[in-house]
Amino acid sequence: MKPIVSIIMGSTSDLPILKKAADFLNDMQVPFEMNALSAHRTPREVEEFATGAQARGIKVIIAAAGMAAALPGVIAAMTPLPVIGIPINSTLSGMDALYSIVQMPPGISVATVGINAGMNAAVTAVQILALSDPDLAARYEAYRATLSKKIVKANEELREVKYEYKV
Amino acid sequence: MKPIVSIIMGSTSDLPILKKAADFLNDMQVPFEMNALSAHRTPREVEEFATGAQARGIKVIIAAAGMAAALPGVIAAMTPLPVIGIPINSTLSGMDALYSIVQMPPGISVATVGINAGMNAAVTAVQILALSDPDLAARYEAYRATLSKKIVKANEELREVKYEYKV
Amino acid sequence: MKPIVSIIMGSTSDLPILKKAADFLNDMQVPFEMNALSAHRTPREVEEFATGAQARGIKVIIAAAGMAAALPGVIAAMTPLPVIGIPINSTLSGMDALYSIVQMPPGISVATVGINAGMNAAVTAVQILALSDPDLAARYEAYRATLSKKIVKANEELREVKYEYKV
Amino acid sequence: MKPIVSIIMGSTSDLPILKKAADFLNDMQVPFEMNALSAHRTPREVEEFATGAQARGIKVIIAAAGMAAALPGVIAAMTPLPVIGIPINSTLSGMDALYSIVQMPPGISVATVGINAGMNAAVTAVQILALSDPDLAARYEAYRATLSKKIVKANEELREVKYEYKV
Amino acid sequence: MKPIVSIIMGSTSDLPILKKAADFLNDMQVPFEMNALSAHRTPREVEEFATGAQARGIKVIIAAAGMAAALPGVIAAMTPLPVIGIPINSTLSGMDALYSIVQMPPGISVATVGINAGMNAAVTAVQILALSDPDLAARYEAYRATLSKKIVKANEELREVKYEYKV
Amino acid sequence: MKPIVSIIMGSTSDLPILKKAADFLNDMQVPFEMNALSAHRTPREVEEFATGAQARGIKVIIAAAGMAAALPGVIAAMTPLPVIGIPINSTLSGMDALYSIVQMPPGISVATVGINAGMNAAVTAVQILALSDPDLAARYEAYRATLSKKIVKANEELREVKYEYKV
Amino acid sequence: MKPIVSIIMGSTSDLPILKKAADFLNDMQVPFEMNALSAHRTPREVEEFATGAQARGIKVIIAAAGMAAALPGVIAAMTPLPVIGIPINSTLSGMDALYSIVQMPPGISVATVGINAGMNAAVTAVQILALSDPDLAARYEAYRATLSKKIVKANEELREVKYEYKV
Amino acid sequence: MKPIVSIIMGSTSDLPILKKAADFLNDMQVPFEMNALSAHRTPREVEEFATGAQARGIKVIIAAAGMAAALPGVIAAMTPLPVIGIPINSTLSGMDALYSIVQMPPGISVATVGINAGMNAAVTAVQILALSDPDLAARYEAYRATLSKKIVKANEELREVKYEYKV
Repeated sequence: MKPIVSIIMGSTSDLPILKKAADFLNDMQVPFEMNALSAHRTPREVEEFATGAQARGIKVIIAAAGMAAALPGVIAAMTPLPVIGIPINSTLSGMDALYSIVQMPPGISVATVGINAGMNAAVTAVQILALSDPDLAARYEAYRATLSKKIVKANEELREVKYEYKV
Repeated sequence: MKPIVSIIMGSTSDLPILKKAADFLNDMQVPFEMNALSAHRTPREVEEFATGAQARGIKVIIAAAGMAAALPGVIAAMTPLPVIGIPINSTLSGMDALYSIVQMPPGISVATVGINAGMNAAVTAVQILALSDPDLAARYEAYRATLSKKIVKANEELREVKYEYKV
Repeated sequence: MKPIVSIIMGSTSDLPILKKAADFLNDMQVPFEMNALSAHRTPREVEEFATGAQARGIKVIIAAAGMAAALPGVIAAMTPLPVIGIPINSTLSGMDALYSIVQMPPGISVATVGINAGMNAAVTAVQILALSDPDLAARYEAYRATLSKKIVKANEELREVKYEYKV
Repeated sequence: MKPIVSIIMGSTSDLPILKKAADFLNDMQVPFEMNALSAHRTPREVEEFATGAQARGIKVIIAAAGMAAALPGVIAAMTPLPVIGIPINSTLSGMDALYSIVQMPPGISVATVGINAGMNAAVTAVQILALSDPDLAARYEAYRATLSKKIVKANEELREVKYEYKV
Repeated sequence: MKPIVSIIMGSTSDLPILKKAADFLNDMQVPFEMNALSAHRTPREVEEFATGAQARGIKVIIAAAGMAAALPGVIAAMTPLPVIGIPINSTLSGMDALYSIVQMPPGISVATVGINAGMNAAVTAVQILALSDPDLAARYEAYRATLSKKIVKANEELREVKYEYKV
Repeated sequence: MKPIVSIIMGSTSDLPILKKAADFLNDMQVPFEMNALSAHRTPREVEEFATGAQARGIKVIIAAAGMAAALPGVIAAMTPLPVIGIPINSTLSGMDALYSIVQMPPGISVATVGINAGMNAAVTAVQILALSDPDLAARYEAYRATLSKKIVKANEELREVKYEYKV
Repeated sequence: MKPIVSIIMGSTSDLPILKKAADFLNDMQVPFEMNALSAHRTPREVEEFATGAQARGIKVIIAAAGMAAALPGVIAAMTPLPVIGIPINSTLSGMDALYSIVQMPPGISVATVGINAGMNAAVTAVQILALSDPDLAARYEAYRATLSKKIVKANEELREVKYEYKV
Repeated sequence: MKPIVSIIMGSTSDLPILKKAADFLNDMQVPFEMNALSAHRTPREVEEFATGAQARGIKVIIAAAGMAAALPGVIAAMTPLPVIGIPINSTLSGMDALYSIVQMPPGISVATVGINAGMNAAVTAVQILALSDPDLAARYEAYRATLSKKIVKANEELREVKYEYKV
């Protein structure tokens, strides 16, 4: 199937973070592609990617980068598609990447998720796509139901650990 | 027309920031509604809003809050719709609100824009809606063309100011 | 005995921090319960818990959470009971959780202790309960006496280590 | 009536912040006293105050300080009463005071509220006192009901401003 | 004369900062040009500028930007010329711009000066150009001599103010 | 009288901060001198000053600087005298100056006081000099007595304001 | 010999940092004592220590503490002796301790050294004591001469490593 | 060959960072020297080095230092040559060194690269030298071509890993 989400990483060292995004898209049966492109090392490939993404059928772009993380903003500057940015923690606890991604000037926006939050980038992508895809909406709703179940189960196990009052 | 974007603010003092979002949605002819709800002061109204939004036809939620800004995350916890969070700067340069909004746990995501970035929240909302609305996509594309024109014009005026070499 | 303190954690991974609170409550013979609930993943369970706590006889709530730590504030919004918040350090040295818990809007208050300070949350809970429980007040006073003794003893051992002037 | 809450400020310049605490205690009909004491300039007065507070009938202490804000912690070290700390913003956005108050060592706890959050210190004090004072509990419950009403009213006014969709 | 330094600003609101750079280049008789270009709003103009600068005779580029300040790094990615970055303070005390400019990935470097340090960007540019221009080196050396004179003179005035010992 | 304290400022714009130091030294009858010297603009004058200070009878050096505040450390590197550093707030809330002054490498120490704390630099200088000057010790002890009196008086005035319980 | 420097630590876990101070004082033949006292756990012992130190012949106090590090300031409030504060890094990179120690109110000063800088606290103490002890001044001057020799030697070894130009 | 770049480190522990600079200069066939000098421990050697560097044929200086990193600025104060500063991360995530290096006063500039960015310091040095050395310019241009190739290759490998859509 033709990919409709494109995952871009500034460095292949970001792969473990982005694998979480990929896994969730697979779980949700959303076809995607994954590429390594760098705003600073392969600017022309970034431009080619960003200006051509919509025509190729891509609907949402997830872009991850660390440090002076220009990649998500540069892509957002060259496509009308929604761009979801993931700040990667390599230095300064990821604050450098967070500021470099979220503090965009008025008019060019990057929808930013938490530091290293690969999973949540995919969640936002699925929420966007589900607006016009009822089957995906149903699959996502089923996933949401499991979220609380996991905590409820953890809570039950916690009770069995019996950290309660002992006297 | 029935609103498809819902703008929520934690306090009516955030109105000047959110007016920028409202203005852009009006420019793009996207019907929206605007409400003040507080995760901490009106939790039941927040729940009623969040759980009912999708059924009322809302497609994207924009939520702004300052300080311990729980509102966007709490809404995201109770709706499958994409939630765009705007951190409001009231103390600590807005860092408290930014962290409170963007650092969500895996599974519940808030698509965060910059501190006080009301305009960009609306841009992301329009990008999302334009995926399934070709007319909106065309209006947004026309807006994007003006962005660069403004800078090109500013650049021309800059040249006329003649800050160039004087010797 | 019926619990009068309720310890809530946003994730079972916070258990080692909260065990310190549980141990001190046990030492002070304060009956307590411990649950895992998430403001973002189980919002309805949080509401059910928070709105029902007082009626069940709970007098003080201790709530721990990391990252965008909405849990303590959300509980505080739905109960008249005093809520003690513990910021958990998972990212950004715990600053994200600290700001998300302590910077509450006027009217809804969370009594916040230090980052990962499970023990001190229990100390504050005991201080509150001791105001109307003379037996507990006596036990707590006895504990306070041991605090200084431990340092005085450490000081004596330190002198024996003989890091003093050698010439 | 004999005061049961004692408000202590490190400097009389903190008075505007603490007036918010005083006003709320007055609204709730909680008798209180207010004093200026400095951990660094009047350490003996602080000791005399802290060691004698309980015997004088004080039940909760609210202590505010800025910069290297030792006052709340020093008082907590010398009384079994619950101590609520208010970090005052005079430099570094109040981060210095926040860290100096909240990051207490295990065993001595300060229940900290937000930067300059005089109001919330009084809210926590009232919550504590209401545990053993049903009349106060009723007054506080009545106040809590007004909190949401204010936002609901603000929301209604907001709708009348008609920032809604104009096309 | 043909410009050999190109000053680029992300927004014309940065002009007061960059005027300091322009003034120093004028003082040093270094021909320069000044343009407004935005990595996010006019990416194609930035590319055209950056890839063509060397051929047009530009030797050093000074680029200023605020917030998620991608401009200096994006230019550095597309030219072999030395790029001097100026972080502009618009939010977060300029820390967002500083991190976005200085924390470049290995291989693409931006020589960063202090926050709002328009003057120092020009100083570094002059130092670079003076390496192969003895006349400029002489003018710059003359300027350096005045730097200490100003402080020596301020010091003499200070002595006349007579803040000295009065007893 | 020959000065025994030397106050050095990196810029004459720091004078209002240092006037507080000068005033306290005058109150304590400690002869001092005041000079403007810059580690970056007049490095040779700094060296001449630092290497010659002890021989001229100076006993304590107070050095204030902002931003990349190298002055106190550079002086400390060239004199055996105690050097007291004052970080001046010009940007980044003074954090840049604080870190630049206090974080010295092992072996070369700068005794640092708070941001803009001109007064306290003089207090530390007086404490040092009083160790071998009983008259100064007596004057300083008298000053210390006034510190608490001021707060005690403020406290009395506070009571008269009658912010106490009104019901 | 009677100690003239007193080293105080808030917790015996700070011993490795303070051993560096002790070693340097031993090298300089300055008699010292070392004690563990806590502003929060043994406030009365701290008061007894601080108010009695001068009469016992102590001339300089070195006080180390982490987190909400009140110890140095509390001691400074109760003695006319110079107090040197060492912020200990236990959480938040030591920033909490640094702010809690250095940001003292006007009139009560703590001469602060870098985070974990046990060695430099002793250097400042020696500099202070050397002002009235020519033999100590000579020993300290001899130490200062070795500082540069170590780097000069390291530099010579560096040259032998031959990281120089290889082509 | 006579060195034209001089690499200076504040401590030999910084060698692993600076080896990256040395390696790149060797790759580009730029003759360099490497020395350990400390602004705080060997100030006279620093002065001798800085004032003599230009006459010895040095064209660019790279200076690395950690903590209160005065070295790059102090060298810049005593030479007209361009000085490239590298902040070394030893404490506080390197923020102390970054601020101490980049926040120079107007008139004395340090061209700062990222925290621990030894490689990029050499890149900027090569860019500067290439302005008047066509052979070096050609070698650097060849290196720049490899930068994008590495990412393009990594991208190809990434595709082979097949993290793509699996359903």
